Amino acid sequence: MIRTLAITRSHEVVTGIPLEKLQPEDYAWIWVDFNAPTPQESALLTTYFHFHPLAVEDCLHVLQRPKLDYYEDLQFFVLHALDPETLRVEEVDLFLGQNLIVSFHSSVLQEVDEAWAEIIQHAHDRKIWSRGPVSCAYNVMDKLVDKYFPSVFSIEDELAELENRGSTESIEDLMNQVFDLRGRLLKLRRTVVPMRDLMYRIVNSQHVQSNNEHKVYFGDIYDHLLKLTDMIEADREMTADLRDSYISLNSNRMNSIMKTLTVITTVFMPLTLIAGIYGMNFTRMPELAWPWGYPAVLLLMFVLGGGMVMWFLKRGWFK
Amino acid sequence: MIRTLAITRSHEVVTGIPLEKLQPEDYAWIWVDFNAPTPQESALLTTYFHFHPLAVEDCLHVLQRPKLDYYEDLQFFVLHALDPETLRVEEVDLFLGQNLIVSFHSSVLQEVDEAWAEIIQHAHDRKIWSRGPVSCAYNVMDKLVDKYFPSVFSIEDELAELENRGSTESIEDLMNQVFDLRGRLLKLRRTVVPMRDLMYRIVNSQHVQSNNEHKVYFGDIYDHLLKLTDMIEADREMTADLRDSYISLNSNRMNSIMKTLTVITTVFMPLTLIAGIYGMNFTRMPELAWPWGYPAVLLLMFVLGGGMVMWFLKRGWFK
Amino acid sequence: MIRTLAITRSHEVVTGIPLEKLQPEDYAWIWVDFNAPTPQESALLTTYFHFHPLAVEDCLHVLQRPKLDYYEDLQFFVLHALDPETLRVEEVDLFLGQNLIVSFHSSVLQEVDEAWAEIIQHAHDRKIWSRGPVSCAYNVMDKLVDKYFPSVFSIEDELAELENRGSTESIEDLMNQVFDLRGRLLKLRRTVVPMRDLMYRIVNSQHVQSNNEHKVYFGDIYDHLLKLTDMIEADREMTADLRDSYISLNSNRMNSIMKTLTVITTVFMPLTLIAGIYGMNFTRMPELAWPWGYPAVLLLMFVLGGGMVMWFLKRGWFK
Amino acid sequence: MIRTLAITRSHEVVTGIPLEKLQPEDYAWIWVDFNAPTPQESALLTTYFHFHPLAVEDCLHVLQRPKLDYYEDLQFFVLHALDPETLRVEEVDLFLGQNLIVSFHSSVLQEVDEAWAEIIQHAHDRKIWSRGPVSCAYNVMDKLVDKYFPSVFSIEDELAELENRGSTESIEDLMNQVFDLRGRLLKLRRTVVPMRDLMYRIVNSQHVQSNNEHKVYFGDIYDHLLKLTDMIEADREMTADLRDSYISLNSNRMNSIMKTLTVITTVFMPLTLIAGIYGMNFTRMPELAWPWGYPAVLLLMFVLGGGMVMWFLKRGWFK
Amino acid sequence: MIRTLAITRSHEVVTGIPLEKLQPEDYAWIWVDFNAPTPQESALLTTYFHFHPLAVEDCLHVLQRPKLDYYEDLQFFVLHALDPETLRVEEVDLFLGQNLIVSFHSSVLQEVDEAWAEIIQHAHDRKIWSRGPVSCAYNVMDKLVDKYFPSVFSIEDELAELENRGSTESIEDLMNQVFDLRGRLLKLRRTVVPMRDLMYRIVNSQHVQSNNEHKVYFGDIYDHLLKLTDMIEADREMTADLRDSYISLNSNRMNSIMKTLTVITTVFMPLTLIAGIYGMNFTRMPELAWPWGYPAVLLLMFVLGGGMVMWFLKRGWFK
Repeated sequence: MIRTLAITRSHEVVTGIPLEKLQPEDYAWIWVDFNAPTPQESALLTTYFHFHPLAVEDCLHVLQRPKLDYYEDLQFFVLHALDPETLRVEEVDLFLGQNLIVSFHSSVLQEVDEAWAEIIQHAHDRKIWSRGPVSCAYNVMDKLVDKYFPSVFSIEDELAELENRGSTESIEDLMNQVFDLRGRLLKLRRTVVPMRDLMYRIVNSQHVQSNNEHKVYFGDIYDHLLKLTDMIEADREMTADLRDSYISLNSNRMNSIMKTLTVITTVFMPLTLIAGIYGMNFTRMPELAWPWGYPAVLLLMFVLGGGMVMWFLKRGWFK
Repeated sequence: MIRTLAITRSHEVVTGIPLEKLQPEDYAWIWVDFNAPTPQESALLTTYFHFHPLAVEDCLHVLQRPKLDYYEDLQFFVLHALDPETLRVEEVDLFLGQNLIVSFHSSVLQEVDEAWAEIIQHAHDRKIWSRGPVSCAYNVMDKLVDKYFPSVFSIEDELAELENRGSTESIEDLMNQVFDLRGRLLKLRRTVVPMRDLMYRIVNSQHVQSNNEHKVYFGDIYDHLLKLTDMIEADREMTADLRDSYISLNSNRMNSIMKTLTVITTVFMPLTLIAGIYGMNFTRMPELAWPWGYPAVLLLMFVLGGGMVMWFLKRGWFK
Repeated sequence: MIRTLAITRSHEVVTGIPLEKLQPEDYAWIWVDFNAPTPQESALLTTYFHFHPLAVEDCLHVLQRPKLDYYEDLQFFVLHALDPETLRVEEVDLFLGQNLIVSFHSSVLQEVDEAWAEIIQHAHDRKIWSRGPVSCAYNVMDKLVDKYFPSVFSIEDELAELENRGSTESIEDLMNQVFDLRGRLLKLRRTVVPMRDLMYRIVNSQHVQSNNEHKVYFGDIYDHLLKLTDMIEADREMTADLRDSYISLNSNRMNSIMKTLTVITTVFMPLTLIAGIYGMNFTRMPELAWPWGYPAVLLLMFVLGGGMVMWFLKRGWFK
Repeated sequence: MIRTLAITRSHEVVTGIPLEKLQPEDYAWIWVDFNAPTPQESALLTTYFHFHPLAVEDCLHVLQRPKLDYYEDLQFFVLHALDPETLRVEEVDLFLGQNLIVSFHSSVLQEVDEAWAEIIQHAHDRKIWSRGPVSCAYNVMDKLVDKYFPSVFSIEDELAELENRGSTESIEDLMNQVFDLRGRLLKLRRTVVPMRDLMYRIVNSQHVQSNNEHKVYFGDIYDHLLKLTDMIEADREMTADLRDSYISLNSNRMNSIMKTLTVITTVFMPLTLIAGIYGMNFTRMPELAWPWGYPAVLLLMFVLGGGMVMWFLKRGWFK
Repeated sequence: MIRTLAITRSHEVVTGIPLEKLQPEDYAWIWVDFNAPTPQESALLTTYFHFHPLAVEDCLHVLQRPKLDYYEDLQFFVLHALDPETLRVEEVDLFLGQNLIVSFHSSVLQEVDEAWAEIIQHAHDRKIWSRGPVSCAYNVMDKLVDKYFPSVFSIEDELAELENRGSTESIEDLMNQVFDLRGRLLKLRRTVVPMRDLMYRIVNSQHVQSNNEHKVYFGDIYDHLLKLTDMIEADREMTADLRDSYISLNSNRMNSIMKTLTVITTVFMPLTLIAGIYGMNFTRMPELAWPWGYPAVLLLMFVLGGGMVMWFLKRGWFK
């Protein structure tokens, strides 16, 4: 679907004009949104707008890196939307001209719809009006980046919960959760870092059509992305620490298992040997005939076993 | 609560003037402190001061990254106070104008109170007077950063104590302390590093209203933050080394446990087998009838067991 | 083999002119391709073209680093082609002059053949014609870099498959696959990173004969290489995480093996001792004569063994 | 103690003039050394020299980071001396003016004494004379940095010794030494890296009163510090490798211990079972009455035990 | 030994003139080589050439960092030669003046001899002649750096061999080789990285007496050093991967050893208990008198043991 939005020089918003009837020169500026377009509609990027073939190619082949290309009278942005559930990436492409903005995304995106609604609602606002297509670009980017936060926040919540839970669960389950968190942080970083680099270039660029007023706005998005990367990096370090603490916990438990095994073996093997010795069938074994032989051996076993347990206790094996 | 402080052109300090009666143009400069303000009071940021909406939004939504934004005639700082007990972060926002400073923090902060008291006390001092609102900003930042040190120092003390304690405690407890320290260092770094980056920008910026005199002062705060990040990084490496040394200590202990188990098993299993053999009920077992059979077997067991212990001693298993 | 391609000033392509008969000044520009040349043919680089001895030396000695050297009226590129099967590197050298491009590669390369065919096919296209030899260089580089993607994609596929497979296979096999993937990523990075650095220098250089139009094209290759390095780095981190998760899985399994061993030993050793005690041959062992002695001992064994199993269950050893 | 040194315009050195009688304008330049001063003497920094309060504060509070501050007509250096035994840090502060240098250190330092003696000895040397107070600063820094080397060299010696020693000692002791070395390297780095950064700023600064001649000298100190950081980093990597090799050695030994245990258990358990079986008291056990029953069982045990040992040998368990 | 080489203005090479008779102004340029000089000869650096004392000091004290110092009319290089066998470092110092080059090395070096021979052989070559002493410096550096490659190549060969060998050798031996390789790579890096940094400074410096022609040559050495550092870094990562794969292999083997032990223990302990029970001497044990008691117990043992083996097989313990 292709939808259009035109802002007149008198701050009026006109929507729904079919693309072929739209005369850009009649309006202050216009926004054309390729909203999950058909291949026929996508072809209009070339046949109607005559955009640069490299840019059009980038639109049609998904999973580009977020980037900003300068063409003669146009700026071409590749942006990433993030599905907070699956952490899957959707590409949003923006062509930003003097009094024209064209957005292109191959599936319907809530973020773009919200930005669209906001422009219609606030078009009378002098500030939005005077900033022209740049305000659309800002609006879309702001909405996209705002959608990254819930994913990071939910990871931070899970991390905090993991830290408190500690030893009530099996280590294997805790480990799996840590590795799952790490994988999600990695996916998030693959989207956030290139977006941050892109925003840095926009804020510090001489090229982008923007005055200082605009830069304050883009700088605000940049700050959010910086905050996000800080959080992601810190969270990855925290998961690494958690993983290491689980590994060491595991190794501590192994130690205590082995201690149990060693104590049991050390205590019972000599006793079993003694029992075995007095179970031998030699004809001349004088102890066997002693009246107090049996209780004496039982006592010996008790003293020996008890002594070894005492010795292990002293060496601190059960601490 | 909103409190005001005005410095007259004759170096007098006037406090307690209600905001609505305060005429900034009558004074050398004024300081308005939003001290844990009510929502109604917070609204004055927009209705009374007409600050930029993005800045006001940053005030009201907590947990921004420390940052510095430039608006037309204002600088907007987001700063972080740190509670040394919980390592929780409090946001302090400063609006710095030509002859106006507005501070905003959603809870009462000792650091701001101290800076406030100091301005009142030293207002006659020519240096403070001539530096204007910048001296307030410096004062507040200096107090905030000074509050970071006790947290780091207490971590360093615990680390030094941990290093000396060594083997008197269970490794599991030591490990838990190390991971607790690492977590706190991580939290501290999340506050200190962005503050340091912010201060670097202030010192090297052309924008901030400050002459070289000011930069010496802000440079001093920057040095403190640099020192803090150095300490935090070095402490994290020390905790990593401690963790690794505990892990290796654990594995050494495991080795010695396994050696004990192996020695016991190796020594007693053959002896038990011998006892088992002479406990068999075959009708023709000539040794059983030998008069010296029983003591000979006991001697054999003693020699065998002793020989194996000697062999393990020689191979250095008990070193 | 040496093959030539000449573009006339009237946008005609002439191929197959022997090198010795080719008059560069008669044409808009020419491309000479040393396609797996014999040593005699290679000598023409010096004797016919009089290229700089250092550049010729770099051609003949394989396995240079991708690089760009500036000679008086020439640019010399060393590029790397990658065999997607073996990840082996082939060197492609380009000499780029004002109206001359010479390519040199010691084996037949599909990538160069495709670029060659494309030039012949699109020579009439004004854009290609006007860009001159730079368009050949772009074409070759684009084809080379496009060939890197399948290798990375196949690694990403294997990684995704590995993540899903989990515990159905032996850990040793999974580990081997992870280390194999890491090795291949390392090999890929050795080719991709220097190519990316090279492309960065081309895009940001003042020297390369190229106007802004060209830079858009080379910038496109640079973006691809940036994307590739991002993917490779993220994949290496993912393999590191997989490796760590397998190691921790291994250690968990070890724990559960040791628990089994310890439980078995702890349960059976005391029972065996009891059996051993009542197998002793003392003449006075009153229990042996009790009518219910035997069932009482069996009961004792059952209670003791069952009790220990209960105790282990309670301590959560089987979770 | 405060000691003074004045160089006349005729290259004469005068020492021992009390500070209150010293007229700086009578001499080419003077050096005042606060050598472990009393609090009363320290107060002279403010009352006599009128140095900037921030700088004086840095003098009195120890453990600043090495740094360089610029005040109007003064440069203020904070430097670190290192006690090679304990690796404890002593602060040395330098105030460097046009024809005045003031050094401040709270304990007597051999390095400053040496620099002092050298100035007295070489004052006639035209080079030292013409360089003025900068030559004192260079002299002190050079002596301080030279004192860092023995600490690093002694670590390198211990490392080399550790590498050669290998397996003759217990791994636990070797490990402890490695972690001790790592701790000392960390302490050293905390001093060397900020000093290096400081020296880099001096060499590359436009501010420091120094011509190119001076920069050669300071560049020499910078080279030494660069060499030191290289050595420290390489040594830390070497200790990390040693630690990892010990860990893997430990795990290899664990493997061989477990193999011993497993072999012993595997060989003896079946034999013990056989002996146990023929120790059972069933009335009808025909084998017991066979004349060759006993030797046959012994043979069976021998064959079984030997066969299992052979099998383990073949599987390479004892390699 | 000191040897001299003088190039006349007519491109003639004169060698063997004693230093005291050599008149630099009579020749185009001269090269003086201090080839393993005696202390008396070394003194000539100061007494005859009057080089800067800091540079002379650097010559006489070995093991400086590779570096480049600028003195008034001289450049002073410290370079490192590498013995491919022992990876020991030899220092080569170059003083490069307008028409003078002085080389200093405390032992006879093949690399310098080769550069010397090449200058004599190619002196008639206009290019070498016109480049003057710079061509000597280039020649020496080129020879030095070329000697680094065999060391890296031999490490790469050993690495490739290690990767293929896999499990035919004991892990302990493989580990030792990996740690040996890592140690050698560390040593190599300590030489190659500072040389690369030095060459970078030469290529990008404005000071070095060199026109663009020279920079192409030095850039060639820089490329080689860049390639070397790339190889060293990649090899260190490969050894880290190999180490980790051996560690995980080790832990897998440990797992399978423990499984064997656990299976043996689990299977035989219950059987031994049964045998022990029927070896007890109670007077009333009805089973003992049963005619089929003995075979029934043997069958029970067989079924129990076989059942447990089946159960382990099912749980996949032998995969």
